[in-house]
Amino acid sequence: MSAVNDTVLDDHPGSVRALLRCPRGAVDVTSFDAAATPGYPGKGRADSLEQLDALRPTLDDLEERFYANSIHTRGPSVLLVLQGMDGAGKGGTVRHVIGMVDPQGVHLHAFKTPTKEELAHDFLWRVRKEVPGAGQIGIFDRSHYEDVLIGRVNKLAAPDEIEKRYGRINEFEAELASHGTRVIKCFLNVSKDAQKKRFLARVNDPEKYYKFNPADLESRSHWDEYMQAYDLALSRCNEDYAPWYVIPCDHKWYRNWAITRLLIEEIEAMGLTWPPADFDVEQARRQVEAL
Amino acid sequence: MSAVNDTVLDDHPGSVRALLRCPRGAVDVTSFDAAATPGYPGKGRADSLEQLDALRPTLDDLEERFYANSIHTRGPSVLLVLQGMDGAGKGGTVRHVIGMVDPQGVHLHAFKTPTKEELAHDFLWRVRKEVPGAGQIGIFDRSHYEDVLIGRVNKLAAPDEIEKRYGRINEFEAELASHGTRVIKCFLNVSKDAQKKRFLARVNDPEKYYKFNPADLESRSHWDEYMQAYDLALSRCNEDYAPWYVIPCDHKWYRNWAITRLLIEEIEAMGLTWPPADFDVEQARRQVEAL
Repeated sequence: MSAVNDTVLDDHPGSVRALLRCPRGAVDVTSFDAAATPGYPGKGRADSLEQLDALRPTLDDLEERFYANSIHTRGPSVLLVLQGMDGAGKGGTVRHVIGMVDPQGVHLHAFKTPTKEELAHDFLWRVRKEVPGAGQIGIFDRSHYEDVLIGRVNKLAAPDEIEKRYGRINEFEAELASHGTRVIKCFLNVSKDAQKKRFLARVNDPEKYYKFNPADLESRSHWDEYMQAYDLALSRCNEDYAPWYVIPCDHKWYRNWAITRLLIEEIEAMGLTWPPADFDVEQARRQVEAL
Repeated sequence: MSAVNDTVLDDHPGSVRALLRCPRGAVDVTSFDAAATPGYPGKGRADSLEQLDALRPTLDDLEERFYANSIHTRGPSVLLVLQGMDGAGKGGTVRHVIGMVDPQGVHLHAFKTPTKEELAHDFLWRVRKEVPGAGQIGIFDRSHYEDVLIGRVNKLAAPDEIEKRYGRINEFEAELASHGTRVIKCFLNVSKDAQKKRFLARVNDPEKYYKFNPADLESRSHWDEYMQAYDLALSRCNEDYAPWYVIPCDHKWYRNWAITRLLIEEIEAMGLTWPPADFDVEQARRQVEAL
């Protein structure tokens, strides 16, 4: 298994990993510019499809190699955590970024309002069931962080229970890392203005009605409290073995490019080669040629 | 919910559904040409990427509408069953065809050698757990048909048990159809020659070693028995509510185009519109504009 935990150390300054890494220590998420486009090599929206397409072959090749490393042995896995306010682009990221990856290597789970059975268990119970297997890119559309986000804002648990969860999350993520899972957490940072524009599109376009949920307006009315809850989550659970990245999401094209680039850099840093044959190659060649 | 069961009836002659539908009645799978390209509108391999890309926006649009139909109500689902000899292209189909679909709407399961727990249950037990939910395109990479294919060839169950399974499968698929699941079964038809070429590529290219399994040579040595087992499966379990299609797979580019086209025709035939809003649109507009 690769030592996937050492990879943050060799970031070079121009990498998206370096540019978007949330600094350790106290965090004020409102200080990040949601409309920024750090590291983007192109002209903007105009060439964004070409820029994304340019990354496709690299992602494709890296992902296949990553997948192949777990066919006969237990290679590393990736867990991509997507968190953000409604309209930030969790679904769009899955569609456009994860949509570029071979479905055979993807394990996607969207965490919804917990069921009664889930609530009857520890908050990590339902999360553990969905962690990616070796060779898989797991994607959490929302995650265990909801339990310190909406959990905190809506007071869904006692204050001391919420406080304990940050430590529990760090232990959980350390355990994942020690078993070869590279945990990559993305805070999809959208501005209030951009969120309003996206809500408007949803209520004005019949093809987007299905994306609108009046409850999203309720969450927005607690915007500042959510930002404070994100501040705490990003400062208390931001170890190098499970780093947070702050993704500027006001431009969807930048978001797609940046997260694709991030995935590429993370898998590239694992330094995986194609796995050796687990069979006698010479003998197999002779057998196949004789067919 | 749409009446997804009536859709086979209105096939027009030029559709891939009509061209590749396995006729009901006795079947001899060796009579189908694995190198044929029925319905392909282009020149062949030369323009195959363009032909596939040309289908992408249609699939994308249809799939999103299909997905949207199950957000607030229970819309239909699709179950795409992929069966074929090793090297026929089950994995390639998932990669290239299902890879075009938004991962949020995909439920993929690859059935492997049954575990002890699975063997302790009825053969459909593990299969039922993986059927797609409403709005999902489920893909079975191998399926319950293994239990009448390798099950028959390798005598993994008593002959009378194997005989009973065809009826059990028909009942199971009828049940799926009655709950709104459109079952589409693809026999990926590869010739012995093409299989040999693909095995050769796997043993000669270090980037493809991971796809080679010496056990595949063992299956090939029972080729004729497998073909007879497919004959039985395709003739006994080929109702209009869960039809078999025979996909010529010697040309990978044709296979990808044909299965994409098939998915498009099947979803198109459901005649789905964008779902109405489940909220008061005027009120929501006023609320969002006032934000």
